[in-house]
Amino acid sequence: MKLILKQVKPTPADRERLKRVATELIERTDAACSKLGIEAKAMLVGSAARNTWLRTERDIDIFILLPEGLSREELERQGLAVAREVAGKRGKESFAEHPYVTMRFKDFDVDLVPCYNIAKPSEIRSAVDRSPHHQRYVKKRLTSRLEDEVLLLKQFMSGAEVYGAELRVQGFSGYLCELLVLHYGSFRKLVEAASQWSPGVVIDPERSYADEAEPRAIFEGQPLIVIDPVDASRNVGAAVSMQSFATFVRACQNFAQEPGKRFFFPRPGRRLSTKEIQAMLERRGTTLFCVTFSPPDVVPDVLYPQLRKAEQALTTRLTRAGFEVVRSDVRSNSQALILLELAAAELPRVRTRVGPPISIEVGDFIKTHLKSRRKFAGPFVDTTGRLVFEIEREQARARKVLEQALGERTTLGKHVGEAIGRGYQIYKGENIVKLCKDEKVREFISEYLTRCLPWYR
Amino acid sequence: MKLILKQVKPTPADRERLKRVATELIERTDAACSKLGIEAKAMLVGSAARNTWLRTERDIDIFILLPEGLSREELERQGLAVAREVAGKRGKESFAEHPYVTMRFKDFDVDLVPCYNIAKPSEIRSAVDRSPHHQRYVKKRLTSRLEDEVLLLKQFMSGAEVYGAELRVQGFSGYLCELLVLHYGSFRKLVEAASQWSPGVVIDPERSYADEAEPRAIFEGQPLIVIDPVDASRNVGAAVSMQSFATFVRACQNFAQEPGKRFFFPRPGRRLSTKEIQAMLERRGTTLFCVTFSPPDVVPDVLYPQLRKAEQALTTRLTRAGFEVVRSDVRSNSQALILLELAAAELPRVRTRVGPPISIEVGDFIKTHLKSRRKFAGPFVDTTGRLVFEIEREQARARKVLEQALGERTTLGKHVGEAIGRGYQIYKGENIVKLCKDEKVREFISEYLTRCLPWYR
Repeated sequence: MKLILKQVKPTPADRERLKRVATELIERTDAACSKLGIEAKAMLVGSAARNTWLRTERDIDIFILLPEGLSREELERQGLAVAREVAGKRGKESFAEHPYVTMRFKDFDVDLVPCYNIAKPSEIRSAVDRSPHHQRYVKKRLTSRLEDEVLLLKQFMSGAEVYGAELRVQGFSGYLCELLVLHYGSFRKLVEAASQWSPGVVIDPERSYADEAEPRAIFEGQPLIVIDPVDASRNVGAAVSMQSFATFVRACQNFAQEPGKRFFFPRPGRRLSTKEIQAMLERRGTTLFCVTFSPPDVVPDVLYPQLRKAEQALTTRLTRAGFEVVRSDVRSNSQALILLELAAAELPRVRTRVGPPISIEVGDFIKTHLKSRRKFAGPFVDTTGRLVFEIEREQARARKVLEQALGERTTLGKHVGEAIGRGYQIYKGENIVKLCKDEKVREFISEYLTRCLPWYR
Repeated sequence: MKLILKQVKPTPADRERLKRVATELIERTDAACSKLGIEAKAMLVGSAARNTWLRTERDIDIFILLPEGLSREELERQGLAVAREVAGKRGKESFAEHPYVTMRFKDFDVDLVPCYNIAKPSEIRSAVDRSPHHQRYVKKRLTSRLEDEVLLLKQFMSGAEVYGAELRVQGFSGYLCELLVLHYGSFRKLVEAASQWSPGVVIDPERSYADEAEPRAIFEGQPLIVIDPVDASRNVGAAVSMQSFATFVRACQNFAQEPGKRFFFPRPGRRLSTKEIQAMLERRGTTLFCVTFSPPDVVPDVLYPQLRKAEQALTTRLTRAGFEVVRSDVRSNSQALILLELAAAELPRVRTRVGPPISIEVGDFIKTHLKSRRKFAGPFVDTTGRLVFEIEREQARARKVLEQALGERTTLGKHVGEAIGRGYQIYKGENIVKLCKDEKVREFISEYLTRCLPWYR
């Protein structure tokens, strides 16, 4: 573990450097406030403020705290004015719940985020207002030993590919990692505890609830429930998907049995050649469909949930039409991709329609199908006593079902639906290889075809 | 109804003729007993003895009643000696629970059945001993009005293709029809009552049980439970399959709503030409497999249950191997046929293996598959949190699965297994048309492809 820590912990020089840059940014922000006559103050938050950043990370989060009394519009106007003044031409405006400014500054990725300076966490007006409270809560409790434990956990999460609360990953945020280490006291103790987790586990560091039943009811369906110590109405694990949750639990189980460096530093995934991809597609014997289109101009946190919504909508449509979707995935780089792997691209024309149970009248069921041109056989009674018609399937070709579903924009997510409306292409089977000229697509397809938990690579 | 009855009821001349032949057979049997010095007496039973035979039926059942004291061997020896003496060269020995002799005699199909002459029905030694008791029970209660009602019911059953307790049909016996009419008082009242039946219905004419719970427990899984008035331990409806039961109930429901001659005299099924069969197979888009072999030399009551057992075993094997069996059927004439219709004859090579739930250790599951040559991808966690391997399917071709299953004789029923062991052929898809040179096979395939409840033809 010491060796792992040595690799991931910033050197004193690294830390000195970050501190210098952060201090400079704080000073610049305060200066900008003075210059513009805006009543606000800068605060360093996040891992940079808590010595919990990995050596490879280069993020600095500066929050601009404005008075509670301001209207939302004023907050945004004044906050952005300060941020723009600091960033100058380097700045780029983004939008999460609030607008904020990002910039590249002396080799760091800097976020300048306006928020309300609210004394009581229970009175916060938006998610970003919580960050200063998180900062104070963690800073007060995290000893330098615990800082190191957080670094180990973050690297472990990173190795398992579940580090990061952004919606592309749906994993564990830095703050969540810190809370878990604070709660369990060490990385190893957390690993032992998490080996026993099952979906719906409740962790309530400040005992904000009398028992687990209440938070479990409030956050129903969320696999990991970690009550925010500064705001009991919030689940810090809300972003963690079932997939990330289960991956982390499996990693802990496997690590507890047989620890190893491979959990922290797994081998990189294999990049397949176009030929290998072609061979593997043929070997699987399935039919892959890939829907491609120009991604809409929105941040990944907006794009990925919509891509997954579209993936889900297409999968549901295909399944309802009788097709078996073996697996699917989405990705977006220079083009957006929805990959759908089908057991078969064509189904038999005949389809069985089963009638109501014996005690229920069948007049309507029979009337509907008896004289239909789509009828193949029936009505007859099968060996289990059910009344059956065999009729012609509405659509026996997956491509047609897919095209139809892609025409129904509303189920695909707003921006993705619009983007698909502007045009898309469907690649089928071997043709997908053509897409692999794009390196990023080849990487995506390689990862799809060789998918494996990182520590088993 | 009067018109129906007119068509199905034997004329006085018909009845006179049957009576003459039956009397002659009784006399011959009694004479044979005297001649052979065997203490026994002949008894006419069944529909011929009760005026409940349809004009188209030509069956005479003569039972040879022997003393209780005889051993089973003696009963068979003496009984068969009498039967052989009566039948002479015309006779043919068959075997159900006991051996018996059948013959064609003056245009009638005659059964000569030895049985014990047992006073109390509760002491009978085998199923055939019950027939004299059934005869006495029904004869005493059936008025000539009720005889006509039985005729209507039998024709209705016949129209619905559920008349006959033989195991090829698994339908309603003549005795069962008589009991139902006795119990409900008329054909129409039975139809009304049966429209409300659901599987597990109990009819207990002599109130042999205090409530329905007990017989329902004893005869669990049997859709129709009619307590035998002469032996409460027996379900007269035991032979009725779920399919026949549901067909009869649907016929009653439909008839109650809109009565018609078509229920009693449905149109015959359409016989398709070879060309039509070919076109329909193509239109369905499925793959039909037909296993053919020489039928073993056993009576239909032995053969059909075994054919169905084999059909079920093959269906189960294919389903377990991942194939979707759309429908199946069996038939035996000059050759035995097992028909299996598959949605697809080939599956993708890749197959998903899902691991245990999150709280269960996965070491063994991972060890089994991780280094396997059959591995395509995995282990990875899917969106529902399950651990998954993608591996190579053991057998992606239905024909191979079928061949393998046909090699395991024990699951196919004794005689059918042996017959298949002596050789079989598999016809696939279009090749099935070749079988249709045999008229009986063409009839079977036609019926399969156009299957429909008779009254909807």
